Amino acid sequence: MGLVEQVLAGDRLALARLLTQIENDTPEGREALDRLFAFTGRAHLVGVTGSPGTGKSSLVNQLARAFRQPEDGSDPVRVAILAVDPSSPFSGGALLGDRVRMRDLSGDPDVFIRSMASRGALGGLARATAALSQALDAAGYPLILIETVGAGQSEVDIARLAHTTIVVESPGMGDDIQAIKAGILEIADILVVNKADRPGVENTERALRAMLDLGHPAAHKHGPSLGAGEAEPAAEQGWVPPVLRAVSTRGEGVAEIAAAIRRHGEYLRSSGLWQQREKLRLESELDALLRDLLARRWRAGLDEDLYRQTFDGLLQRQISPLQAAETLLRQAERETSNPTRAS
Amino acid sequence: MGLVEQVLAGDRLALARLLTQIENDTPEGREALDRLFAFTGRAHLVGVTGSPGTGKSSLVNQLARAFRQPEDGSDPVRVAILAVDPSSPFSGGALLGDRVRMRDLSGDPDVFIRSMASRGALGGLARATAALSQALDAAGYPLILIETVGAGQSEVDIARLAHTTIVVESPGMGDDIQAIKAGILEIADILVVNKADRPGVENTERALRAMLDLGHPAAHKHGPSLGAGEAEPAAEQGWVPPVLRAVSTRGEGVAEIAAAIRRHGEYLRSSGLWQQREKLRLESELDALLRDLLARRWRAGLDEDLYRQTFDGLLQRQISPLQAAETLLRQAERETSNPTRAS
Repeated sequence: MGLVEQVLAGDRLALARLLTQIENDTPEGREALDRLFAFTGRAHLVGVTGSPGTGKSSLVNQLARAFRQPEDGSDPVRVAILAVDPSSPFSGGALLGDRVRMRDLSGDPDVFIRSMASRGALGGLARATAALSQALDAAGYPLILIETVGAGQSEVDIARLAHTTIVVESPGMGDDIQAIKAGILEIADILVVNKADRPGVENTERALRAMLDLGHPAAHKHGPSLGAGEAEPAAEQGWVPPVLRAVSTRGEGVAEIAAAIRRHGEYLRSSGLWQQREKLRLESELDALLRDLLARRWRAGLDEDLYRQTFDGLLQRQISPLQAAETLLRQAERETSNPTRAS
Repeated sequence: MGLVEQVLAGDRLALARLLTQIENDTPEGREALDRLFAFTGRAHLVGVTGSPGTGKSSLVNQLARAFRQPEDGSDPVRVAILAVDPSSPFSGGALLGDRVRMRDLSGDPDVFIRSMASRGALGGLARATAALSQALDAAGYPLILIETVGAGQSEVDIARLAHTTIVVESPGMGDDIQAIKAGILEIADILVVNKADRPGVENTERALRAMLDLGHPAAHKHGPSLGAGEAEPAAEQGWVPPVLRAVSTRGEGVAEIAAAIRRHGEYLRSSGLWQQREKLRLESELDALLRDLLARRWRAGLDEDLYRQTFDGLLQRQISPLQAAETLLRQAERETSNPTRAS
């Protein structure tokens, strides 16, 4: 039985091995992804993002537990956690990290925890996250929690990947509104004020609600893609991001967040936005893959002497970076249009 | 007199207009960059990164002032500030942002402040930052402070761009060591504990020093590039990142940070690391440009019908993203090797 079959049969060890191959972008990993892709499209991808120190990891942990042991009588679901946050105890970035917290989860055969060992091996965090999510989806995890550190481009990329994006804040993170980034709020489907037993929780909540009022209707869930310029439809306005309190270390408020995730999933499906996000996601993934393949092929046919010579000119500032790039591309085009080299 | 000449002659308005053209990637902007490139290579690029709420913006502001009005008798230098942090008051992300703080700077004709209006217009923050830095460098700003929010890939990219990287922390940002990301420490040349009048400053300092002890010798200032796999030489170990306290809102400790920046610049020049970082930077910039140009050219020759058809197969999960990308590339290759289409 091959790795793909083992993964489809629920073999955790095979899944772990496969994810490594995918991350390392091996031929086996690529082939397996090709075969597994037909089995994807079922999982609810939930991105959890926020600054370091907001207690994201602990929240993700508790959310996994809430979905495993639902208090509201709903069926337990299998959960995969994908940690793309270098500060997360899951991804091993924290030296002293409180790994204790994940101990009770790791004993559960229906929870699969994976951290991104390397950033950018597969050509950027977003691409690697997309590829690993697909494998987890095919492996039959209907809920995938993607934990990512919240700042700048990376969490926007991951929001583009997720169906539901949770932005975690905590009281007292900054002394002013600056700490709450408008850009991040725009991508939030659910807002959580974690560590809500701390002073200042009302201020944080108020600031979040004020910015939500300002920011909505949020029609910018997805940025422009090379593939298509479609905007999200007005139906998006049907969802008003709730602001929820939690004390994740004690499990408080977590059931409510889990319920909001379920609700958002249902909302996406009933409004047709689920399919739309799916489409945008695949478009941006295809785009990234194309860019990567183009670069690889170009590099494979590269004349190393010309590269060195051009780069020397750049170093000596005789030509600009763009001029250097154009020089190298002209050579590549001559090569491809030469019939003896064309494949 | 053209825009380039005006910029070289020190016209601030012309510079502002040029930066907009560069950010929008207009033909004029590209041509100007080509011409300006010969005048670059003189500026000391200093990246300032850290989580939201650490007081980065205020620190950057005070650093600019310290370089404008040096207390140690050194010559004042012209300063450019490039804010790539969406939460920065410079880049307009903060709604209530304390713009008051920058008022005294903006009156100084030898301080130029620029925020990144759009993220990703030029194909990623790092590329846009590189391009704008070059223009500021050519315009004669010997010190360029690049403010960026610290988390994940973006600040690593910007560290790759900067000669000197300052990582800003503040006491009480998280309740545990998690808040201090190992990955960020690896790129730090100077560590600042800002808001040092707050309780917990000793703990933060101790944690930073402990992680520095563990993390050094830090030979990973630069990640692997497509162009070359050269590691930084052992000389890097000659610099031990200082941990400095500051209360930037009151200007305390800022002169010491400015002095450390000067020292680090001298260290880089005397050790030969300056040239080495320059080389790595240009390599990764060339790499990004090549990827972008390849994608553009490919798209220009794309058969839209084939794209739609292939994408439909992907949406219906008949083919995987990689298979879709390969299908589209095969078409592109046939096009290029067809003499009637070859340029």
